[in-house]
Amino acid sequence: MTESKKFILQERDIPTRWYNVLPDMPVKPEPMLHPGTLKPLTPEDLYPIFAEELANQELNTTDRWIEIPEEVRDMYKIWRPTPLVRARGLEKALDTPARIYFKNESVSPVGSHKLNSAIPQAYFCKKQGITNITTETGAGQWGAAMSLAAKHFGLELAVYMVKVSYNQKPYRRSIMQTYGAEVVASPSMSTKAGRKIITEHPNYQGSLGTAISEAVELATSTPNCRYVLGSVLNHVALHQTVIGLEAEKQMEMAGDYPDIVIGCFGGGSNFSGISLPFLRHNFSGERNTRFIAAEPESCPKLTRGKFHYDFGDEAGYTPLIPMLTLGHNFAPANIHAGGLRYHGAGAVVSKLKQSGMIDAVDIPQLETFKAATLFARTEGIIPAPESSHAIAAAIREALQAKEEGKEKVILFNLSGHGLIDMTAYDSYIAGDLTNHSISQEEIDRNTADLPGV
Amino acid sequence: MTESKKFILQERDIPTRWYNVLPDMPVKPEPMLHPGTLKPLTPEDLYPIFAEELANQELNTTDRWIEIPEEVRDMYKIWRPTPLVRARGLEKALDTPARIYFKNESVSPVGSHKLNSAIPQAYFCKKQGITNITTETGAGQWGAAMSLAAKHFGLELAVYMVKVSYNQKPYRRSIMQTYGAEVVASPSMSTKAGRKIITEHPNYQGSLGTAISEAVELATSTPNCRYVLGSVLNHVALHQTVIGLEAEKQMEMAGDYPDIVIGCFGGGSNFSGISLPFLRHNFSGERNTRFIAAEPESCPKLTRGKFHYDFGDEAGYTPLIPMLTLGHNFAPANIHAGGLRYHGAGAVVSKLKQSGMIDAVDIPQLETFKAATLFARTEGIIPAPESSHAIAAAIREALQAKEEGKEKVILFNLSGHGLIDMTAYDSYIAGDLTNHSISQEEIDRNTADLPGV
Repeated sequence: MTESKKFILQERDIPTRWYNVLPDMPVKPEPMLHPGTLKPLTPEDLYPIFAEELANQELNTTDRWIEIPEEVRDMYKIWRPTPLVRARGLEKALDTPARIYFKNESVSPVGSHKLNSAIPQAYFCKKQGITNITTETGAGQWGAAMSLAAKHFGLELAVYMVKVSYNQKPYRRSIMQTYGAEVVASPSMSTKAGRKIITEHPNYQGSLGTAISEAVELATSTPNCRYVLGSVLNHVALHQTVIGLEAEKQMEMAGDYPDIVIGCFGGGSNFSGISLPFLRHNFSGERNTRFIAAEPESCPKLTRGKFHYDFGDEAGYTPLIPMLTLGHNFAPANIHAGGLRYHGAGAVVSKLKQSGMIDAVDIPQLETFKAATLFARTEGIIPAPESSHAIAAAIREALQAKEEGKEKVILFNLSGHGLIDMTAYDSYIAGDLTNHSISQEEIDRNTADLPGV
Repeated sequence: MTESKKFILQERDIPTRWYNVLPDMPVKPEPMLHPGTLKPLTPEDLYPIFAEELANQELNTTDRWIEIPEEVRDMYKIWRPTPLVRARGLEKALDTPARIYFKNESVSPVGSHKLNSAIPQAYFCKKQGITNITTETGAGQWGAAMSLAAKHFGLELAVYMVKVSYNQKPYRRSIMQTYGAEVVASPSMSTKAGRKIITEHPNYQGSLGTAISEAVELATSTPNCRYVLGSVLNHVALHQTVIGLEAEKQMEMAGDYPDIVIGCFGGGSNFSGISLPFLRHNFSGERNTRFIAAEPESCPKLTRGKFHYDFGDEAGYTPLIPMLTLGHNFAPANIHAGGLRYHGAGAVVSKLKQSGMIDAVDIPQLETFKAATLFARTEGIIPAPESSHAIAAAIREALQAKEEGKEKVILFNLSGHGLIDMTAYDSYIAGDLTNHSISQEEIDRNTADLPGV
C-alpha cells in the first residue's frame, strides 16, 4: 500500500452552501459608495448593472451561509469536486520538511477556477429573465468560463478582452468563440469609454479597468442586459468559497491542517476562494493559520498600494470601493499573468489586509516562471502564469521551513493550468522575459487625487 | 438528490494489472517478421530498438494479465483514475433515448491518454539502465506525454515532431520544451532518412512514418539509447487498457453496460485502451458489444486499407507488421487531427477487424468539428480534433438509436482535450476547413508492391 497523492471527493461532497465572510469579519469593510450621491450603496443602486440576486448577495452582511441552487450544483458536476493533491514531487525536489498540498482547480474544462462564479452569475441572470450579458476578461480565463456558462443557460454574451491578452493569447479568444461568445479587443471603438482612450492613447494595450468600463457601458445602454464580473466583488468571492470548503474536507482526509494558505492575487477571486473558509476558524479563535496573497511585483496593490475610495474601472462608472489601490488609471506592465493586472483589491480583502488578518507578498516575473517550470517537471502540470505566483510563494515558504527545520503544512490554490499560455513559456525559455517593478512616485501620483476612506 | 453526472473512483481503484488481449484472441494475428531475414520476430530481435521488458511484452502471447509496477502506479496517481461521465447535456441536445457515457482521459496533465503508456515505457527503459531515448510525435500529444515521463525518470529525450504539426501546434512544442525535452521538426537533416526525403521532396510536411524512421535511426545509432513509440504496437495497447479496466468498474457504478464502445483511431492506442477490456467479455460469449474505430476519411486504413505485411515507418526500418495499411509511403492530407495521420493499424486491431470482432467508420473532417463544437457547448469540454472522431461516431449512433427508438448505451473515449488545438477551431469557425478524401487508385498504387500476409 503506497501513500495517497490525491484526496478525492464524490459529487455528493460538492458544497450545498457558499460561505459569506461578511457577517464573521471582526473589522467590517467600510460601505461602498454610489458614485453620484456618494451615499452608501444599496442593492437597488446595483440593479441596473447586476442581476438582482447578485446585487443582494453583494451587500449581504447577515447570512453566513447562502444556498447553492440545484441548477448550479448540477453544472458544477461537470468537473467538481476538484482534487486536493499532495505535491510529493515538489517536496522532494526542494528537500523540505514541509508538507505541500495544492487544490487543483486547473481540471475545470476551461482550465481555471473562474467557472465557479461564472455559472451562478449566468444562472441568476437567466432566472431574472435577462437575455444579454457583458463582461471583461484579462488573460481570458474569466471570459472563457463566462462563455461556457452563458451558452449553458442560453444567454448572449459579449466579452471585452484586454488588448494585450487578445494578442498574446489568441487561443483564449478562440475558446470563447467556440463556446459561442462575441469577443472584442479592448479598448475598442464600440463604447464611449473605449473611443476616448483610443483617441488619447492610440497604442494603449488595455487594462482590466478599461475593459470593465466598456462592458459596464454596453450593459447599461442595452435593453435587458446586465454586466457580470469575474473578481473583486463580494459575490464573486462568495461563489469561489466552494474551493476552500472542499479543501477543508480534503485536508481532513489527509489528516492535516494548513499552517499557511496561499493564493495568487489579481482582484481576489481565487485567493478568497481558497482562504475564506479556513479564515473563519481564525475568526473563531480555533486556528491561527497564516494567509498569503501572492501578487506580481509589477502590480503590488496589497503590498504597496494606498487605502482609498477608488473606482473599480478606468472610466469611473462603478461604485466607489474602499480598497488598497494603485489608482484606477494605473496601466500595469505587460506581464504574462494577465489575470493579475488589476489596479485594486476588493473591499473584503483590502480590509482583511488592513486589519492584519492576512499577509501579502509581491513576486518578480522571472521567479514565477522558474517556480512554474520546477512545478511542471515535478508535479506534471504546467501552471498558469497567474497560479505560478502562488507556487513561487509556496516554494519560498517551503525553503524557509527547511531552513528552520520545521514541518510546516502549506496549502496553495492551483487556480489554473498554463496550456493556453505557452507563448509565455516560450519567451521564458528563450530568455526574453524581464522583471517589472513600479516606482513609489508612480504609485503616489496615481493615487494622489483619490478620496480617503 | 439529483442524478450522478460523473462516476468517480479512488486511487486504490487504479488497476494493478494491464490486460493482454493476445492470449484471448480466438483468431491470432500472424507473426511480425524481421525485415532482414523475413523470419518471425523474436524478442531478441527487438532488443536493439526497445527496452527488453517492452520487447518481451510486445511478443507475450501467454500472460493474460501483466503486473503494473508500483513506480508506474504511483505516477498514474498524478491524474488517475479518470472520471467516467454521463453526457447528459449532449443526450438532451440530440434528443436521443441513448445513454451516452465518455471516459474522460483529457484530465491528464498533458491533456491526453498518451501518458498511460509513456510512463511505463520510460520506467522500463530506466530500469534497464538506458540513459537516452528517442520518439516521434504527430499532433504532439505523445511527445508531450513522453517528455513528462522521461523527465520524471531522469532520461534524456529527443522528439521528432511531424513538421505540419510543428507548425500548426507550436504550443505542443513549447510544452515538450518546458518539460525539458529536445524537439526536432521532421523530416530533419539530423538523420539519413530525414535527409533523403528532404532532398527528394523539399516541401514535404512530414508524416508519422517518416518521424518514426528518424527516431529509430537515431536510437539505433546512439550508445545506450532506445526508441519508444506511442501507438500501433501491442505493448502500447497493453498499457492503455487501464482506460477500459477503469471504465468497466465505472459502468458498473452507473448500473449500465455498453452496447457500443467507440474510440478514435490513429494507430490504435486509445481505441485499444477503451475496447480490449470490454472485448474480452465478447470473447467469452458473455456479452455482445459492438466496437467502432472512428478514423478520418482522409486516412481510412481500417475501412479501405489493404491487409498486407508492411513497415511501421516510412524508410522501412521497423519489423514487417501484418496490417491493414494504406502503404508506408502514404502521405496523408494535412488534417488537424494530426494524431490520426498514420498509414496503418497495429497487428492486433487489424486482425480483430479482419475477423469481424470490431467495426470501423471513416468520418469527414467537417463532421468531426461540427460534433466537437456541439460537444463543447453541451458538455463543456473542447475536445481534441482526434477525439472528435469518436464523438462524431457516437452522435451518429445516438441519432440512429433515436430513429429506431432504442435505449442504446454508448460509451466512447474522450482521448484528449483540444485547448492546444485552437488554431484548428479558428479555421473551422472561419469556414476555412475542408474535407479530404482519397481515391481508390491511390490506395491501390501505394499498396501494390507490399507482400501478402
